[in-house]
Amino acid sequence: MIRKYTFGLPIDTNAVIAEIKSEDILSFPLELKTGERLQISFDLLSDEMIFGLGEAIRGINKRGWTYESWCSDETNHTEDKKALYGSHNFIVVGDRFALFVDFAGKVEWDLGYDKPDRAVITLDGNDADVYIIYGKNQRDMVVQFRKIIGKSYIPPRWAFGYQQSCWGYATQEDFYTVRDRHRENKLPLDAIYMDIDYMDSFKDFTVNSERFPDFQAFVDSMKRENIHLVPIIDAGVKREKGYSVYDEGHEKGYFCTDKDGKEFECGVWPGIVGLPDFLNSDARRWFGSKYEALLRCGIDGFWNDMNEPALFYSKRGLEKAVAKLKQITPDTMDIGGFFEMRNVLFGMQNSYDDYCSIYHNLDGKRVCHKDVHNIYGAFMTRAASEYFEEKYGKEKILMFSRASYIGTHRYSGIWFGDNFSWWSHILLNLKLLPSASMCGYLYCGADIGGFNNNVTRDLLLRWLALGVFTPLMRNHRALGTRAQEAYNFENVEDFSDVLAVRYRLLPYLYSAFRKASDTDDMLFRPLAFDYPDDKIAREVEDQLMLSDECMIAPVYEQNKSGRNVYLPEPMTLYLLSGERITEEPLEKGLHYIEVALNEVPLFVRNGKKIPLAKPAMNTAELDWENISFLG
Amino acid sequence: MIRKYTFGLPIDTNAVIAEIKSEDILSFPLELKTGERLQISFDLLSDEMIFGLGEAIRGINKRGWTYESWCSDETNHTEDKKALYGSHNFIVVGDRFALFVDFAGKVEWDLGYDKPDRAVITLDGNDADVYIIYGKNQRDMVVQFRKIIGKSYIPPRWAFGYQQSCWGYATQEDFYTVRDRHRENKLPLDAIYMDIDYMDSFKDFTVNSERFPDFQAFVDSMKRENIHLVPIIDAGVKREKGYSVYDEGHEKGYFCTDKDGKEFECGVWPGIVGLPDFLNSDARRWFGSKYEALLRCGIDGFWNDMNEPALFYSKRGLEKAVAKLKQITPDTMDIGGFFEMRNVLFGMQNSYDDYCSIYHNLDGKRVCHKDVHNIYGAFMTRAASEYFEEKYGKEKILMFSRASYIGTHRYSGIWFGDNFSWWSHILLNLKLLPSASMCGYLYCGADIGGFNNNVTRDLLLRWLALGVFTPLMRNHRALGTRAQEAYNFENVEDFSDVLAVRYRLLPYLYSAFRKASDTDDMLFRPLAFDYPDDKIAREVEDQLMLSDECMIAPVYEQNKSGRNVYLPEPMTLYLLSGERITEEPLEKGLHYIEVALNEVPLFVRNGKKIPLAKPAMNTAELDWENISFLG
Repeated sequence: MIRKYTFGLPIDTNAVIAEIKSEDILSFPLELKTGERLQISFDLLSDEMIFGLGEAIRGINKRGWTYESWCSDETNHTEDKKALYGSHNFIVVGDRFALFVDFAGKVEWDLGYDKPDRAVITLDGNDADVYIIYGKNQRDMVVQFRKIIGKSYIPPRWAFGYQQSCWGYATQEDFYTVRDRHRENKLPLDAIYMDIDYMDSFKDFTVNSERFPDFQAFVDSMKRENIHLVPIIDAGVKREKGYSVYDEGHEKGYFCTDKDGKEFECGVWPGIVGLPDFLNSDARRWFGSKYEALLRCGIDGFWNDMNEPALFYSKRGLEKAVAKLKQITPDTMDIGGFFEMRNVLFGMQNSYDDYCSIYHNLDGKRVCHKDVHNIYGAFMTRAASEYFEEKYGKEKILMFSRASYIGTHRYSGIWFGDNFSWWSHILLNLKLLPSASMCGYLYCGADIGGFNNNVTRDLLLRWLALGVFTPLMRNHRALGTRAQEAYNFENVEDFSDVLAVRYRLLPYLYSAFRKASDTDDMLFRPLAFDYPDDKIAREVEDQLMLSDECMIAPVYEQNKSGRNVYLPEPMTLYLLSGERITEEPLEKGLHYIEVALNEVPLFVRNGKKIPLAKPAMNTAELDWENISFLG
Repeated sequence: MIRKYTFGLPIDTNAVIAEIKSEDILSFPLELKTGERLQISFDLLSDEMIFGLGEAIRGINKRGWTYESWCSDETNHTEDKKALYGSHNFIVVGDRFALFVDFAGKVEWDLGYDKPDRAVITLDGNDADVYIIYGKNQRDMVVQFRKIIGKSYIPPRWAFGYQQSCWGYATQEDFYTVRDRHRENKLPLDAIYMDIDYMDSFKDFTVNSERFPDFQAFVDSMKRENIHLVPIIDAGVKREKGYSVYDEGHEKGYFCTDKDGKEFECGVWPGIVGLPDFLNSDARRWFGSKYEALLRCGIDGFWNDMNEPALFYSKRGLEKAVAKLKQITPDTMDIGGFFEMRNVLFGMQNSYDDYCSIYHNLDGKRVCHKDVHNIYGAFMTRAASEYFEEKYGKEKILMFSRASYIGTHRYSGIWFGDNFSWWSHILLNLKLLPSASMCGYLYCGADIGGFNNNVTRDLLLRWLALGVFTPLMRNHRALGTRAQEAYNFENVEDFSDVLAVRYRLLPYLYSAFRKASDTDDMLFRPLAFDYPDDKIAREVEDQLMLSDECMIAPVYEQNKSGRNVYLPEPMTLYLLSGERITEEPLEKGLHYIEVALNEVPLFVRNGKKIPLAKPAMNTAELDWENISFLG
């Protein structure tokens, strides 16, 4: 049962597609404070767990911290952070109710932080739709929610293969090397990503013609080897006269403006850019059609980046900062002056003041960016996806986005942004999967091996053994970090063994994905959803249920030859490695299991059968029909 | 058996106090590269564990990462860091040998990072003593090492009580409030810390007379209530004419100089300071005597801070940076210019170039700071401690230091610096304990509740339940973070329950501490040291052996009502809370144990008896004689 309450005059966020009639707000079943900032509060029961918030930091159980919905280019995913790239205002409170706050501005979630037994949700505004969902259990509440926000995006099947990325691949030779070294080392591969360096001066929808003298031939040559190329598209469009994308957008008034109606200028990778006004449906159609420049060369996948939007600085902010820095006199500066100088520069990036000074044309209505911040990136991806669907049909083009809101799951997947090569980020990756599932993000994954900082061989192997189960399985790293392609490490056959398991499991994983999409269900679930009365299982934060047949429990600590696993029911443990499989039936309870670096552990419920294909070097060569079975 | 090899002409770091004759370096049993940078390498056996490095990041088993010995004011203790505040060049390699590299410059430790089966240790120089220690097991190698570096510092008994600290306590009223609110809430307390705000303009050995109009009366009044005050002392001395400490040091030439022999000027809390030249024994004696200004008021404890030394900037560095910033023209700056601007400011703090431009007078010999960096803070603390011992006798004055080197353990304890209110930092706290023990740091602990960022009630309770066992049990936080004194939280009796356990266990903890100090043994040990043949136990990184009787295993995750524990032998689990005790005998193996937020779990080996006192409000009131027993 879903109850909708409408406060004020909410804008259309495009999150909910079902028609639901609003109830009288006097019947709102939680405590309310109205006024400039709508506030919803309720008491928490003792030991009550809170799930949700989609792409958010910390545990599967979100209780005991304070979060913000505010799409943020936040690279340092430590425990104290409040916001990541997506804003997903959906929570499940114990088995009592679920709550969706449909509001595109900032939302603060105090979930037992200030007072351990109290939740307080504060909106930076008072125009919102609030949905309260009751169901027979947590999973049922999620399915009801998913039904009103629409079916999840399904990418092409090749996008379930293993994918390699690196910010730093620049020339076509770099890409050929990546392809060839995977093939030589018997490492399967379906796609290689093109980060910002493929562009001409970081200009969207351009290709650097020195580095790619014949781009079409390059794409074709990769295709023949069953390698898909996936270029990045950034939100900001370089302000450069003579660059047709900018000139067109400028002429048509498709860029965001400042308070005075002038184009808002900010600095990101290309230098000063204009921000396309994705809130404007004409601008959306226009921007979506620009992908055609790459599609017509045979490109069939994209990732939309920097669309929170990330602002390194605004032009106005830079001018103010530089004016301040020029006043510094080293001889008389005290320590306060030193910290002020640092803060001036730190404060320029993704400044809230800047977000407050951007304006949109929401199909005729002028709105301040701060009130629609959390749908900006979502609408960029909607722009692309609507074009793809109209022109190419469903499931033809891979698309995933960094920023997102509820509803983006109909258009694309997401990745979890710029993580680190930290062991703790394997676990964070795992914890993000069920909350992403709750919001319909079935196609998702983290940068395997870690984006920032330096990887180690064992970290990459352990992370891949989790990545085997994530629909998006992409190894990605930042410029200047240690080489992270599998072929750079000793005993590369260990990597082949792990990657082979991905391809062997693809028929299962793909059908589990389709089933979750078709039935608006979760692909990954916390153990608490399946075993609510098992007091050990319900608190487990390092194992997940996968579809209806399996449980996963990767090793995520260095120098460990195994880990503790809790089985809430009898299951069979399979250790998969290349074509080798060992099996061990295990009773309900706590077990220590040994897992070698080249093994992938999988727990299968009794009576369930898991289809297995033969290993393959890519999804095109995979024999999807001739399968054997585990179990 | 200890073998010493001398390369070049090492300076006296004061680490080893035993007289050991050097062997012929031709008999050095590991691979050597000589030249400008001495390099020691060896192959690692499969699954061989490496322990040690004292105050270092990551696991108990240090294998698989690259570390640096370089005393660093590094506040962000994430997995990717290489150096913290102390430099402790001691490792134990499996059960084969231990290695101590006595060298005061930078040392790089690649322990299976570049190649998983290879260790490479590179010194930034070629004058060093290298000790290789063979023993019948790991613990024996540690004891042999400890015997040559001398007995561990023993603080006064009150320093084993619970202590409260906060950067931000400024006036004497602040301190009275902390004292009174602990007493009112039945929270025991033995000491309150005075962070930088007690000083007059951050000048060492001064007291702000507005905030403390009668400092002597203030100290006396606290003493009467059995509260000890522990002021901070920073390494840098404010360059201010008329400030007697600076004037004296300047006149006597006791400050470090630059290349040209002028006083080196750098910015820290007081603004521009001079760095006392602790390498100069006259300067050391002079600086040590300055503590008398506070000692004579009845102060009997200190913490030495910022002695890596931390440099916010050097005067020369600031001038260069400002000149560069002044050249910025916002209109023409590209993205490269933006990042360059940011890097200029980031690069100023603790700059290696600055460290290379500082010079010392090492009792007549001019040495560059980079070659003695890692003993600078150690020698500051030596200065204080030698004065205390001469004037007041052993064990009278509490002293601990942020920076340290091997040997500092004879003079003081250490704390683990500026951690965060992160759950993962409870575990980091635990992992640091055995490696600190290996280097003789028996009196040590982390900032309980976390220094940076905001605490939660449950985090503080869980952290205190570990802190019950650490000799230094101090709650400390930074200015601007959430109030962290126990009395700020709901159901304060839960905090009383946990703190009561500390006082009940004090007779045991103090005697275990004395035993470890007397026998040059470890207070905390990895399970691997005690159960080398138990393949589960040897990899455990979240439990520790405490002395010869106990094992500890705190809960360190949020929203957990218990945890998994591995028992390598049968033990009895005691859950202690206030005066309540429950006991449960457990078999060898894996167990899930429930632990409430107000309980402290303790595992006692069969046949061992743990003395218990009655709870008390401070160590002076504790009845150390009338004890009962656990077990």
